[in-house]
Amino acid sequence: SPGNKISYSNRGMTLEDDLNETNAYYLEKGLAVIHKKPTPVQIVHVDYPKRSTAVIKEAYFRQASTTDYNGICNGKYIDFEAKETKSPTSFPLKNIHDHQIDHMKQIIKHKGIAFVIIRFSQSEEIFLLEAEYLFQFWDRMKRGGRKSITKQEIETHGHPIELGWAPRIDYLKIIRTLYSF
Amino acid sequence: SPGNKISYSNRGMTLEDDLNETNAYYLEKGLAVIHKKPTPVQIVHVDYPKRSTAVIKEAYFRQASTTDYNGICNGKYIDFEAKETKSPTSFPLKNIHDHQIDHMKQIIKHKGIAFVIIRFSQSEEIFLLEAEYLFQFWDRMKRGGRKSITKQEIETHGHPIELGWAPRIDYLKIIRTLYSF
Ligand SMILES: [Mg+2]
Ligand SMILES: [Mg+2]
Repeated sequence: SPGNKISYSNRGMTLEDDLNETNAYYLEKGLAVIHKKPTPVQIVHVDYPKRSTAVIKEAYFRQASTTDYNGICNGKYIDFEAKETKSPTSFPLKNIHDHQIDHMKQIIKHKGIAFVIIRFSQSEEIFLLEAEYLFQFWDRMKRGGRKSITKQEIETHGHPIELGWAPRIDYLKIIRTLYSF
Repeated sequence: SPGNKISYSNRGMTLEDDLNETNAYYLEKGLAVIHKKPTPVQIVHVDYPKRSTAVIKEAYFRQASTTDYNGICNGKYIDFEAKETKSPTSFPLKNIHDHQIDHMKQIIKHKGIAFVIIRFSQSEEIFLLEAEYLFQFWDRMKRGGRKSITKQEIETHGHPIELGWAPRIDYLKIIRTLYSF
């Protein structure tokens, strides 16, 4: 019933929070070992008031050279990026960086599984789009085409993920079906 | 000849530097996609003098919940920790944390490859020790036994890695031989 539908409204949680909970669930159940990588930070100055409590006093955010999440499930290497967009009709490709595309291409070349999880925050819809399709839209942009993937294209080539309780965002189910493992 | 022997002396490089160069070499040659994870940092306060140059003004080092390096080579998930010790005769297990052992056990369970790279800084010797052996010595400690792995035990069960030019620390060669891929 609509009353049981899980919604982002008033939960105060981000896509990242939900993916972290999902990964914690997978880990606890022994289903997969997938972690978010720490935010890359360039540390410039550290104070050592005591040896045990170093305080970073000056640091800067660095651009990630890879995707945010990776790990293993049943012998398969898994690698993905998660992105939210406020646009109701398309996913802007400026959310992805060149080196992240390069990284995902390398992963595919080494027989890993790479994809992106896209959340449309207005409609609260979540999709998994395999990297192979992302590359096609990326290449279209590089050839001078549109700088985004339309929502309809994502609906056509991607896979919707319903928000659940546990796991919240069951992307593994989709991947295990797609790759038969 | 001894004159050609590569040494850490006066190079001013750490084990981590050498592993980063090794991984950059593997990536460039298409041999593997293995990265060091960023140092985990708990960010407390960020200043935004301009939108483009956020400055982290207060942050703290967090303990890593996984190992430092992971990635993929030819379909195989690879995961390892790198540690240096100044002790000439043994590797103190206090260098490893409980959750890192738990993490490596999960990786093995999921058919990944996990190991530790240990450098004895005094003798400049580097060894690769598979996680399965690390677990045995860890369990010995937990049963009240010695809190370190002797260098002789590492020589018996581990694999020496010669320092080279490119790649500097060719751990992949050992792993590909051990696991036949
Ligand atoms: Mg990111
Ligand atoms: Mg470490």
